[in-house]
Amino acid sequence: MKIAVDAMGGDRAPQDIVAGCAAAARDFNIPIILVGDRDAVRRELDRIDAPESLLEIHHCTQVAGMDETPTDVLRQKKDASIRVAFELVKAGEAKAAVSAGNSGASLAVGTVVLGRMKGVERPGIAGMFPTTRGRTIVIDIGANVDCKPSYLYQFAVMAEAYAQELLGQERPKIGLLSIGEEDTKGNELVKKTHELLKKSSLNFIGNVEGRDVMTGAADVVVCDGFVGNVVLKLAEGMAEAIGQMLKEELESGVVSRLGMLLSYGAFRRFKQTVDYSESGGAPLLGLKGIGIISHGRSSPKAIKNAVRLASNLAAANLTERLQKRLMPEDKAE
Amino acid sequence: MKIAVDAMGGDRAPQDIVAGCAAAARDFNIPIILVGDRDAVRRELDRIDAPESLLEIHHCTQVAGMDETPTDVLRQKKDASIRVAFELVKAGEAKAAVSAGNSGASLAVGTVVLGRMKGVERPGIAGMFPTTRGRTIVIDIGANVDCKPSYLYQFAVMAEAYAQELLGQERPKIGLLSIGEEDTKGNELVKKTHELLKKSSLNFIGNVEGRDVMTGAADVVVCDGFVGNVVLKLAEGMAEAIGQMLKEELESGVVSRLGMLLSYGAFRRFKQTVDYSESGGAPLLGLKGIGIISHGRSSPKAIKNAVRLASNLAAANLTERLQKRLMPEDKAE
Repeated sequence: MKIAVDAMGGDRAPQDIVAGCAAAARDFNIPIILVGDRDAVRRELDRIDAPESLLEIHHCTQVAGMDETPTDVLRQKKDASIRVAFELVKAGEAKAAVSAGNSGASLAVGTVVLGRMKGVERPGIAGMFPTTRGRTIVIDIGANVDCKPSYLYQFAVMAEAYAQELLGQERPKIGLLSIGEEDTKGNELVKKTHELLKKSSLNFIGNVEGRDVMTGAADVVVCDGFVGNVVLKLAEGMAEAIGQMLKEELESGVVSRLGMLLSYGAFRRFKQTVDYSESGGAPLLGLKGIGIISHGRSSPKAIKNAVRLASNLAAANLTERLQKRLMPEDKAE
Repeated sequence: MKIAVDAMGGDRAPQDIVAGCAAAARDFNIPIILVGDRDAVRRELDRIDAPESLLEIHHCTQVAGMDETPTDVLRQKKDASIRVAFELVKAGEAKAAVSAGNSGASLAVGTVVLGRMKGVERPGIAGMFPTTRGRTIVIDIGANVDCKPSYLYQFAVMAEAYAQELLGQERPKIGLLSIGEEDTKGNELVKKTHELLKKSSLNFIGNVEGRDVMTGAADVVVCDGFVGNVVLKLAEGMAEAIGQMLKEELESGVVSRLGMLLSYGAFRRFKQTVDYSESGGAPLLGLKGIGIISHGRSSPKAIKNAVRLASNLAAANLTERLQKRLMPEDKAE
């Protein structure tokens, strides 16, 4: 069950990507195909103590730049590492693809190479947020900026299955992100989606508000990719800003500074809980295959976690399960 | 320069509203008209040591409920406290209205009673967010859920003037909330608004992301009221959730618990910085008069701060200044 990793995508690629893959291979015994420039990847492998037997290099000649449009990558970069990683999944040589590169390009390439599941108009990216009660899945966190109600409905169906597989929740609570709990609150998209979800067999708990993303009131929060991406980046920024404000306050006096030293371990654990860059990656749901999108600023640890997530989802046959749920008649056949 | 306060609006009205008004009158010497049921307000005043000479009661018989639609309030509650407060502004008996009640109703009533400024299609609510570098104004935080590019453009113009008056910034930096800094990123609304802002004489710094709301990269962040309200409530929820997670971590060990005790003062100051319910209120920009919308959960301190904000904006002639800026030709006449 190999995982294909785009070794060239990410702010500190290939260095941090290769380091993260080496850690995933060593710690979890996961075989990995490193997709990228052979010499560049080789150089990184030689610098570290990598478990070579679990790591193979698949050479390719191109890289999708962070500023390139998805269309340009699709047209002009047939040998981009991001594309080749998805092609390895398509060919059955790998079970999942992971990339910390240009996320718009990942989405476009993944969709073109693997294709969409039956019943899915648009794939969505499912992000995981830490909350005071555990974790909440937010879908879509950036794949689709202008959505139709049917897209949001399909995101809910896919995220339900994902929550069942990943979090082991039997009947995850699905909330629709809006600006008030009443059915009538929200913009046109939300009001129409509300109707669809209300009629469905999902465990739909109604509208939820921004604050509920953090309290865990819902297991799954559904929204369009514009709103979801704003939410993701605000949460990241806020965790950082609050950490900084708190640090400044604590350092402003001798007594509180001593207090901070005593609380150091607790602070570090807290920081890990709210550090989104450490969370690994977010799966692209709705494709005929598994694709994980990681943060451009991913650390080796984040990449390691993303590879583990990819491996877990592949082992759980997520793609087949999602497809059955989207097309329940196929299940009965 | 009296301020009309809706004494009946808010989760703990009239109690906390009257207490907040008494504090504002006493601490800032601001004369206040308490609009609401005479007996209920009188009872609250009698319970506290209120500066009676600065507080007068304007009796009315109705209250806009939190669940009532703006249309119902407009049609059926001609004597609602929220409406009477705005009518006192219209009649020149008060310089500004403040309400912690049903915010949709406040917006509708304020618009109908005071009317919109020339050049404004929709009034917007301007919220203030604490950042690591000071404060950022976000507009609109909930008045308009479905927007046209021209609304967002007008929000930017009004918020520029507001930032100049309130924060004393000569040339506030205006950012457009999107999901990437590149001009081409965003949904249809954002892309079209980007064009309008780029052509304007505003100090437009381009697209900003969710994280920038917290870093103070822009002085003013423009977005539609759906996105803005999600951002506001997420920020509130996150400040609370992070506080709780941190508390749990710190209380989990004896050493870190001691550390927390030593850091107590710093924690308290920090909490005040990020506590949105304490921030007072947000002005409704674009009306022919000043209206402040406070959080339903406003504490007496928040109401006190909202009254002070109303008084400051009235003293600065905000309405006249905004109108001049929106219609610069009037200035030359």
